Amino acid sequence: MKTLIRNVRIPAAFGFGTAPVDVAVEGAYITAVGADLPASPADKRVDGRGDLLLPGLVNTHCHAAMTLFRGYGEDLPLSRWLEERIFPAEDRLTDEAVYWGSMLAIAEMIRNGITSFSDMYFFCPETARAVLESGIKANLSRSLVSFADGIKLDEDPRFAGAVALADAFHGAGEGRVRVDFSIHAEYTNRPDYCAAVGEYAASRGLGMQLHLSETEDEHRACIERHGKTPAAFFADLGVFRCPTTAAHCVFVTDEDIAIMREYGVTASHNPTSNLKLGSGVMPLRRMLDGGLNVALGTDGAASNNTLDILRELRLCAILHKGINRRADITTAAEMLPLATQNGARAQGRPDCGTIAVGSRADLILVDLSAPHNMPIYDLDATVAYSAEASDVRMTMVDGRILWADGAYTSIDVERLRREAGRVIAHYFD
Amino acid sequence: MKTLIRNVRIPAAFGFGTAPVDVAVEGAYITAVGADLPASPADKRVDGRGDLLLPGLVNTHCHAAMTLFRGYGEDLPLSRWLEERIFPAEDRLTDEAVYWGSMLAIAEMIRNGITSFSDMYFFCPETARAVLESGIKANLSRSLVSFADGIKLDEDPRFAGAVALADAFHGAGEGRVRVDFSIHAEYTNRPDYCAAVGEYAASRGLGMQLHLSETEDEHRACIERHGKTPAAFFADLGVFRCPTTAAHCVFVTDEDIAIMREYGVTASHNPTSNLKLGSGVMPLRRMLDGGLNVALGTDGAASNNTLDILRELRLCAILHKGINRRADITTAAEMLPLATQNGARAQGRPDCGTIAVGSRADLILVDLSAPHNMPIYDLDATVAYSAEASDVRMTMVDGRILWADGAYTSIDVERLRREAGRVIAHYFD
Repeated sequence: MKTLIRNVRIPAAFGFGTAPVDVAVEGAYITAVGADLPASPADKRVDGRGDLLLPGLVNTHCHAAMTLFRGYGEDLPLSRWLEERIFPAEDRLTDEAVYWGSMLAIAEMIRNGITSFSDMYFFCPETARAVLESGIKANLSRSLVSFADGIKLDEDPRFAGAVALADAFHGAGEGRVRVDFSIHAEYTNRPDYCAAVGEYAASRGLGMQLHLSETEDEHRACIERHGKTPAAFFADLGVFRCPTTAAHCVFVTDEDIAIMREYGVTASHNPTSNLKLGSGVMPLRRMLDGGLNVALGTDGAASNNTLDILRELRLCAILHKGINRRADITTAAEMLPLATQNGARAQGRPDCGTIAVGSRADLILVDLSAPHNMPIYDLDATVAYSAEASDVRMTMVDGRILWADGAYTSIDVERLRREAGRVIAHYFD
Repeated sequence: MKTLIRNVRIPAAFGFGTAPVDVAVEGAYITAVGADLPASPADKRVDGRGDLLLPGLVNTHCHAAMTLFRGYGEDLPLSRWLEERIFPAEDRLTDEAVYWGSMLAIAEMIRNGITSFSDMYFFCPETARAVLESGIKANLSRSLVSFADGIKLDEDPRFAGAVALADAFHGAGEGRVRVDFSIHAEYTNRPDYCAAVGEYAASRGLGMQLHLSETEDEHRACIERHGKTPAAFFADLGVFRCPTTAAHCVFVTDEDIAIMREYGVTASHNPTSNLKLGSGVMPLRRMLDGGLNVALGTDGAASNNTLDILRELRLCAILHKGINRRADITTAAEMLPLATQNGARAQGRPDCGTIAVGSRADLILVDLSAPHNMPIYDLDATVAYSAEASDVRMTMVDGRILWADGAYTSIDVERLRREAGRVIAHYFD
């Protein structure tokens, strides 16, 4: 069946003019884009008049199941928050809790126009199940840590879990699920383990997700420990031979940026989490000028507290102006790819993130009729500065509509509320 | 008629426990708060189960009619933005444009749970008309400038307009409209004029709205010109004898904070505008520690680009953590009054901003059922970090419901769209 989205506008940042166009979708792909596309009576038509069409938003750093800890232990210093609240709560996690926590995250993301996310956590098969059932896309990774030298990969149950995840789910759902490896961070791992994991993942051609220079303490301690920054540490161990997404990057140096550029490492910018946890502000302008691929991430709901890429986009679009005291340091048009195609590139999904014939039909419609989006002089600015998640009236992944006009098509939200509530009450109250 | 809001929760920041309560409203006032209040069959009942009740949000710095310029001239340095885009556009303003621009702002604010705003602009009788018709509250002020010494108040048409505004509208709508005076800023005024306006406004017991130390250039130039900071400048001229709301305050010193404390000046914190225009970040922690009344403002939609106090609240609640690199520098509970009662105090509305018997019934209901607000461990954190404007399901001002479940009761939004669109096309395209 063909779906025809009619008379919709697309921001200039994605290569379109101001005139509305039609977009045809067949199966999982965009098959035509143009004015007044022919329609047959059998086609499903979506009236896009007054709406904006965007490539689906991509969330390049998330711990989906941590929706269970949204608001759990607020306003604490990072170490106390982790040690007194999050780690003990994570100790009580079960398959079931992770499944419902992941589904809660996915429901929120679909409603917010996110069509794909990158995830780093435990109990990943449960998250994979929620991804496959819900229709969203995700790059899933089992977070790996190693606190002693000499851990052998073939004796490490965590690594075995990561391998099993890749074996079972990489490419599942007609490619909707991809599996990456994840070295949690420099400060939670030993060099020999990082090198071995990196070598294994590279040999399978799999991606890598890791935390990089999130806090100043972490960045400085790495230099004290290893005589080099976290970026140099991972590069020298061969980890960056895997296509890598490095989350946070708050304290990267110009040398780090050059290293990341050399290896094609994507920086996942998580502005809300970095502010809320008191980490700081990533040097976005220097990173863009250094030629890095920069994308946006929410981090987990425990440190955000929402999974809303339009919110991250807006914060990103104003924060660097304010911090650098230069209103012209970034433009709206320059920011939009951070929320879309740069994320798709980070995920190893070259056919996602754009609106073009042959691209995957990961698309969202944004309703611009509410007063807060009036008037419109510049669609790029409307997306970057005015639009909000509740304006998303349709979310489509691989041509399948998952959210339309306030309702889910693939998630039983009443059951989700009930089951997530039960899990939360049982494990965390 | 009595309205009974039943089984609703109220965050601890407003002095309530975790158990749901009923709130009774008669006329413009809250007449009872408690568990299981008696109801008679004639009462209108609002089921608040699953919702949160908050005092109406207060926007303490706005230029409402500038919704017309939302997105008009983005990503420019402040001086080019003003000189090339905003000032020429403002030159073309008319009564009609300001009326519809103000109504567009008011519609957005009502939907976003804002029950009162402070405004500084021109053509104020048109804004007053929109306020009176829509049912919202506002402190309106005619922005005054003086670029030469020796301007006599009784020969100044701007001042005459400000006086006429006060004569015609102060106290109108059973007190919904209050009229303040407004000295636009130090850099747009001469000292003798400021002193005379301040003396006049103080003699009538009226409030004062002004811009203070918004940019570093402005702050420094004032010191060069007058040998003192803008805060000292206004204090020494007697302006602060009027109850004053000073917008921005990005560059205030500890001495300025002491001066503001002495005179009871409210600082209107506009974090989005200050970031987007490249101004910087107000020293919130020092100001709170210095005993200042701090409230939140959006500034105009041209520099925000929305009129959303929940958004400002969230940004405020995370920004200072990040800038100061201390996750515990502010708490959610500490931030909530900035969006509510501190704003009401700034506006000279002592019976607004709280939920208590005898308070004005300026109340909003926030629907917490969406996935992005699950779970809830701490209602203060939910409001500060998760809730969004689209969760506001009811906005009540003086006991009158202006917004309920997606619909306006006092604004014909279709006509608004049409007329605002016409004005925008006619004057600004």
